[in-house]
Amino acid sequence: MSADVQESTASVVTTPSAREIHIERVFDAPRDLVWRAFTEPELVAQWWGRGNKLVIERMEVERGGHWRFVEHAGGEVHGFEGRYREVSPPERLAYTFEWDGMPGYVAIDTTTFEDLGDGRAKVITTSLFHATEERDGMLNSGMQTGLDQSYAALDRLLSQLAQNRSRA
Amino acid sequence: MSADVQESTASVVTTPSAREIHIERVFDAPRDLVWRAFTEPELVAQWWGRGNKLVIERMEVERGGHWRFVEHAGGEVHGFEGRYREVSPPERLAYTFEWDGMPGYVAIDTTTFEDLGDGRAKVITTSLFHATEERDGMLNSGMQTGLDQSYAALDRLLSQLAQNRSRA
Repeated sequence: MSADVQESTASVVTTPSAREIHIERVFDAPRDLVWRAFTEPELVAQWWGRGNKLVIERMEVERGGHWRFVEHAGGEVHGFEGRYREVSPPERLAYTFEWDGMPGYVAIDTTTFEDLGDGRAKVITTSLFHATEERDGMLNSGMQTGLDQSYAALDRLLSQLAQNRSRA
Repeated sequence: MSADVQESTASVVTTPSAREIHIERVFDAPRDLVWRAFTEPELVAQWWGRGNKLVIERMEVERGGHWRFVEHAGGEVHGFEGRYREVSPPERLAYTFEWDGMPGYVAIDTTTFEDLGDGRAKVITTSLFHATEERDGMLNSGMQTGLDQSYAALDRLLSQLAQNRSRA
């Protein structure tokens, strides 16, 4: 893998304000496939859990719908849940995000899907927290490592989906 | 009713910061009764809906527990829900608050119960929003009118509970 490709697929995490985390990541797949991978439960189950078993208990992809995912990792069980605030295919998803370990601490995640025009797509996620300490807690939780594992699994899934499509 | 009593039972709403609403209200009842009225579903059902039918679909009063109330008012149905962040009897409750009409917009309500030492209790609620516009939307929604109706119903319930206790 060349340095150039390496750079384009690494996630870039910044903190544009005291209560926000901003993440950008380029995927080597068309935007519509990336949108599907974020919004179809049977596809989400294949990458969100970073290779761990992921049980999608609830995923109602519409404004006001709820979602709840449970990740089974090495004997531990981690639940995550929230509610969709906006679903605007194929451009934008906004939803609340809460981890069972910190119940009642809620981030607003807004994910934008950009068509780069060359068969690739950029996924931009902004997380807004109620307080700076909550944001910093997330940053210090190993978030980026987990995210990079999820996104690497998503790369593999997108590659399969693109191959299946080119064969069809 | 004297002016003095009137003053002590009106809710006082202030905005201590750009993303907060602060509400104080004195109740003519001992703190333990007020705590019960906020945390026992069969009591909440008698005042939270302001005299309207209130269906308590879920109310798990413990850290991480969920709550969901549905108010039936004049042919309209309004759902509210959230999750408990802290349950510390008889002093403090913290929970998320979300109205179905604005899904994914989440306030953190922290309610403190103060024993005034004279048989009365003060209930202080702070609501923290993600954005000033969300707070202002709540302030402009008729919140205080609804709250005062709920708290008037709570006054009546507490009076009954105190009478039942003194007879027992």
